[in-house]
Amino acid sequence: MNYTRAALFIIGTELTRGVISDRHGRLVSSQLTQLGYRVERIIILPDDGTVANHLRECVKTCDVVLVTGGLGPTSDDRTRSIVADLAGVELVRDPLAFEALYQRMGERIWGANEQQTMIPEGFEVIPNPNGTACGFRGFVRVDEREVLVVALPGPPREMDPMFFNHVRPLLGELSGHDDFERSDYSTYLLAESKLEELCRSVAVEGLEWGTRFQEQTISLYIAGGNREKRTAMVEKLRSLVGPLLIVDGDVQPVELLIRELKERGQSIATAESITAGLVSKLLTDQSGSSAWYWGGVNVYANESKTRLLGVKEETLSTFGAVSAECATEMAEGMLNQSSAEWALSVTGIAGPGGGSEEKPVGTMCFGFASRTRETQSVQMLLSAYSRDIMRRRAATVAFLLGTLYIQGGRLLDTVKKWQYS
Amino acid sequence: MNYTRAALFIIGTELTRGVISDRHGRLVSSQLTQLGYRVERIIILPDDGTVANHLRECVKTCDVVLVTGGLGPTSDDRTRSIVADLAGVELVRDPLAFEALYQRMGERIWGANEQQTMIPEGFEVIPNPNGTACGFRGFVRVDEREVLVVALPGPPREMDPMFFNHVRPLLGELSGHDDFERSDYSTYLLAESKLEELCRSVAVEGLEWGTRFQEQTISLYIAGGNREKRTAMVEKLRSLVGPLLIVDGDVQPVELLIRELKERGQSIATAESITAGLVSKLLTDQSGSSAWYWGGVNVYANESKTRLLGVKEETLSTFGAVSAECATEMAEGMLNQSSAEWALSVTGIAGPGGGSEEKPVGTMCFGFASRTRETQSVQMLLSAYSRDIMRRRAATVAFLLGTLYIQGGRLLDTVKKWQYS
Repeated sequence: MNYTRAALFIIGTELTRGVISDRHGRLVSSQLTQLGYRVERIIILPDDGTVANHLRECVKTCDVVLVTGGLGPTSDDRTRSIVADLAGVELVRDPLAFEALYQRMGERIWGANEQQTMIPEGFEVIPNPNGTACGFRGFVRVDEREVLVVALPGPPREMDPMFFNHVRPLLGELSGHDDFERSDYSTYLLAESKLEELCRSVAVEGLEWGTRFQEQTISLYIAGGNREKRTAMVEKLRSLVGPLLIVDGDVQPVELLIRELKERGQSIATAESITAGLVSKLLTDQSGSSAWYWGGVNVYANESKTRLLGVKEETLSTFGAVSAECATEMAEGMLNQSSAEWALSVTGIAGPGGGSEEKPVGTMCFGFASRTRETQSVQMLLSAYSRDIMRRRAATVAFLLGTLYIQGGRLLDTVKKWQYS
Repeated sequence: MNYTRAALFIIGTELTRGVISDRHGRLVSSQLTQLGYRVERIIILPDDGTVANHLRECVKTCDVVLVTGGLGPTSDDRTRSIVADLAGVELVRDPLAFEALYQRMGERIWGANEQQTMIPEGFEVIPNPNGTACGFRGFVRVDEREVLVVALPGPPREMDPMFFNHVRPLLGELSGHDDFERSDYSTYLLAESKLEELCRSVAVEGLEWGTRFQEQTISLYIAGGNREKRTAMVEKLRSLVGPLLIVDGDVQPVELLIRELKERGQSIATAESITAGLVSKLLTDQSGSSAWYWGGVNVYANESKTRLLGVKEETLSTFGAVSAECATEMAEGMLNQSSAEWALSVTGIAGPGGGSEEKPVGTMCFGFASRTRETQSVQMLLSAYSRDIMRRRAATVAFLLGTLYIQGGRLLDTVKKWQYS
């Protein structure tokens, strides 16, 4: 028998009233996915018994149904009898569960808790080391199929160990999968729609993919096939978008630069106009960041560029504050002010105001200076829906180009190859 | 007609695969509950079209159905056509949505994005200021009932403002909940549980309240009674937590400082150690911010404090970098480097490392200097669960105290009254 389709029911009126957030949905579905199951639905319901109808519908198509919650001692917790009804059996007292609870509670067990030791006949008890409600698992016959039904209590500190110790191993056995084959990547500066288009253009039989928008990156996963096939697909993507924009694993762009600096035991100083502190803030998100971050300036108004960095007024009047020339002077000025080995600068137009025909919103210039390498600066045009995203993208570019600069790369050649959108 | 039963569909294969956690379930269900709806189910489904059957089942009993996700440009996003099918209408291009997207994307719209401007005929478009996928809302006739169906995009930063600006008001109208009988406030530095406790301690018969966690603030609303009663309740709260920490309306702390500066036509310069650019980044989140923000320095490593601001090495060795003395020299050094009328400084220990018995994690010092007022500096202890929240709270304090300083207040007296936790 092939176990593939799974459903998850999460019961709790405090969830449907929005008093607390559900935690089980993600945990269980990620485990099921790893084991090769396809999670067809996650349903959150109040403690009012309505799960009965949903369950009856669900077992018609699903092979594994996991229910959390509704096992407590209060009157509106009724998962036990609903599952027994579904299986067409009676509730019976489990002697081991009763004994374990009696050890804890003594005669107090004869109140509301006693019913927590009842399970559907023919089911197997799942002990709960952290609470009073035992769980249970068993098979329900639906037409010609055997559907696995598992019930666990709602509180995460009770449910989590029960799931990992008693449910996950069984699910692995049933699916015959150890771990689902899957590779994760981080992509930068690519729009989600563009990434999807690119994936489709290099798609390989037997591989699936998916994307997820995050603050500074879009995550990409490729599943199925084998590692070689997945690597081949991602290499094709890389050849289309140019290097640097797709990285193995879950990696924020700032981490690339920090790795490079840590490896060398060196630090960087920043001169930011348009990002005005965002680059610096991201470089110091971790404790201990003075190891790689020296300090910097946020030279937002033009006068501050002159005063704090010594950018020439002539440069500002001839080329403008958003120019490769200004970025160069900002980076070199910052390097001179500091004792850091490296300095970077960002200046640009994030909008919504401030654009012109010659320099539209999205025009960004980056400069990089060091004690050992020639200064480099580049100008490019970023696109984004908002000032906020524009500034984040500018920070991402600063980190990527900063990494490449330290590695000794030619920034201009790289930027030309980028087909971001 | 009585609108009471609600259902929420959350679509995303990345959710059923457990790649990310759902955020909408809690947010929307808590809002619906506040408005008097009963949320009967929250269903999370993959992007595979199976929502169609669930929706058809759901409208038989629910009055309001909200769908998030499945509006993106990728091939597996198909909420638009499913809702059109359900309503028995065609998909038609919304001219306003098309125009708005064309303004942003130009000819690039003719790839995958163009279908994002289609909505079911007779529905109303819900504009998306933060992304390409517009939402829509409309009524579907089921037997003798009109069921409200709302579709919004999945990413929280797109969905949240669309929900609060275009959906929540309509839901309030339908449920008969009178939003005019409600006052909104922004609170700063108070923990959500503390705020709840305080509200309970000053609760007045007939008033309800609720809170919502946001990036830099916790929103508080008080509903019911009349304006006088609600104002009386909030004044009692203010008397308990001290002034400044509860403000009328939806106001980010940085806006308080910006208002003060704009009114005077003056600007501020910043010297940040622990926040390292966050204060500056927030001050420049709006276009045109050079009107109030001159520039600043991120003096994270100690040497940068000396080099960029002229903080004395003796001050650093005698009092430490996290001291009122250092904060004073940072603010005054910054003022001298700039032509701004005002300067502020932040130095502190955000953790997780770096604390000591004398100066534990959370110790923060703030300095304020100006051309016309005496310099003031204060030390305080903030508490927070993470480095990130600690730095945000430090930025909030900088904005609140900066506002008070410009207004001519005594910072020390104010800080002593704060009973934040």
